[in-house]
Amino acid sequence: MAFPFEISATDGKARTGVLKTPRGDIRTPAFMPVGTAATVKAMTVDQVKDTGADIILGNTYHLMLRPSAERVRRLGGLHKFMRWDKPILTDSGGFQVMSLSGISKVTEEAVTFASHIDGSKHVLSPERSMEIQADLLGSDIVQVLFGIQQGSTFENLRRESSQRLQDIGFDGYAIGGLAVGEGHTAMCEVLDYAPDMLPADKPRYLMGVGKPIDLVEAVARGVDMFDCVLPTRSGRHGQAWTWDGAINIKNARYADDESPLDPGSACSASRDYSKAYLRHLFKAEEILGQVLLSWHNIAFFQALTSAMREAISEGRFEAFRRDFAARQSPV
Amino acid sequence: MAFPFEISATDGKARTGVLKTPRGDIRTPAFMPVGTAATVKAMTVDQVKDTGADIILGNTYHLMLRPSAERVRRLGGLHKFMRWDKPILTDSGGFQVMSLSGISKVTEEAVTFASHIDGSKHVLSPERSMEIQADLLGSDIVQVLFGIQQGSTFENLRRESSQRLQDIGFDGYAIGGLAVGEGHTAMCEVLDYAPDMLPADKPRYLMGVGKPIDLVEAVARGVDMFDCVLPTRSGRHGQAWTWDGAINIKNARYADDESPLDPGSACSASRDYSKAYLRHLFKAEEILGQVLLSWHNIAFFQALTSAMREAISEGRFEAFRRDFAARQSPV
Repeated sequence: MAFPFEISATDGKARTGVLKTPRGDIRTPAFMPVGTAATVKAMTVDQVKDTGADIILGNTYHLMLRPSAERVRRLGGLHKFMRWDKPILTDSGGFQVMSLSGISKVTEEAVTFASHIDGSKHVLSPERSMEIQADLLGSDIVQVLFGIQQGSTFENLRRESSQRLQDIGFDGYAIGGLAVGEGHTAMCEVLDYAPDMLPADKPRYLMGVGKPIDLVEAVARGVDMFDCVLPTRSGRHGQAWTWDGAINIKNARYADDESPLDPGSACSASRDYSKAYLRHLFKAEEILGQVLLSWHNIAFFQALTSAMREAISEGRFEAFRRDFAARQSPV
Repeated sequence: MAFPFEISATDGKARTGVLKTPRGDIRTPAFMPVGTAATVKAMTVDQVKDTGADIILGNTYHLMLRPSAERVRRLGGLHKFMRWDKPILTDSGGFQVMSLSGISKVTEEAVTFASHIDGSKHVLSPERSMEIQADLLGSDIVQVLFGIQQGSTFENLRRESSQRLQDIGFDGYAIGGLAVGEGHTAMCEVLDYAPDMLPADKPRYLMGVGKPIDLVEAVARGVDMFDCVLPTRSGRHGQAWTWDGAINIKNARYADDESPLDPGSACSASRDYSKAYLRHLFKAEEILGQVLLSWHNIAFFQALTSAMREAISEGRFEAFRRDFAARQSPV
């Protein structure tokens, strides 16, 4: 199914609009919190909704292993299972098969691998990935698994991926293979031309990105959608992202700091708790610290995409981008 | 300050009423969630409030060591620090000094001990315990630290504790030293006579108790208030308390169980998530599992005290007690 993508304003290469799906509108630029194992880590779905997220991501690889795609289907699909009624995007499973599992056999048709959980053997093929995502999990936006022959030309890759996308009627483009350690500068260099090679009227999704400054620079280059574990993962380790850069809440400088992370935020975690209290929770290794910092970080990423949408709509994205970069201290 | 304690109904030895404090009414029988280190573990204060809790407990020993009583005072007191505006009861610190710390010296005036966190030396005396609780933390209900001479008679103990309580103007009685492994039967035997030795018009608080069936049997014997880490601690380990007894949510029998823990509950954690999902969260070691089961258990303990208050008011506590015991399967 092709979802209507309506671009309401552009500013330079930056765009803002709405991807319309049966389960709800996705306002772009959009940040998608990652709910790997049917949970955005350390958050209730009500807290995730409260941040203004329009869509979350689920991981095909993790869910097919535990609790299994068939079990999720029996329990009513991924939305009902995890109590999230807005859109869900799933990945193909390919990235985690490569990075997490023990691969035992690769053919043109499928990859056989050993679960990182218990070593059990599983098979993933393009057809099985699609069955899991669309039929069993009930995902709203799916991604296509396909292999890359060594020595493939870009033209071949584009033709093959276009064919796969046409096969399932998907109507958007994902940019992957970045955000694997190449750094901000190299990412920006690729994004200086990559989005221009994609049709202007389709959503462009940059997988696995990234830091707030990465999001701003990618939007400046025409990207519409992002997902990343960064806000929840760094939140669980005591890192809070703010308009003035990232801070380590465990730092002694916050021991008597009565100010909240963001007094102007609509999010309780950002607005209602002092840095001194949050620091105490981390020093005492209390779960609530991980909960509140994950919640705050997801709220901040949503506030950031919201601010970008507004800046693009009002034709002042360049000023926003400049001011944002100036306030973000290097991490 | 003596708080008015108004008993509105009795049924046998069981009583229901209200302890009126400046920060709010405490409806009895009352269960007080334990917020050891300025957090009811794995829960936001909004979730704690949502369960209907009128009062929580804080631990003097833990807070004096981290973040320190003086720091809590500088940050506006314990209520502001942890964002809980209803009553807080603190303990004397004595129990944890005995059970957690390394005691290096005991005199009639004070105990010197080493912190279980970093080995640092600290001193706790009756006066210091009171200063921490009342002046620094800003507790609503304090407890008195005093030593027991070996060979003290019950009369001596009662006289000394009464004197201490009069000194600070406190107007209630705590029963401690139970719930340290003596078992349900022995606890009930002590409670068959202990509450009767306390004035009928003062609240009676049974420290550190307990399982749901313990609460019901203690209320039947005239106890009004309880605190216990059980609901949050067992919740973090996958145990859920229900009207039909305790269950281990990790059990394979729940893998495809679409029913929630308590469909009739007002608590989202009890009502909105399937046992299959909760089991999945624990199998995947997701923090949200600990959050939801802690929340559910606290909500269940509040629902239990609420049901007891109603049964006593309506003169049917004996029937409630009998039905409750019959439904609770042995754990």
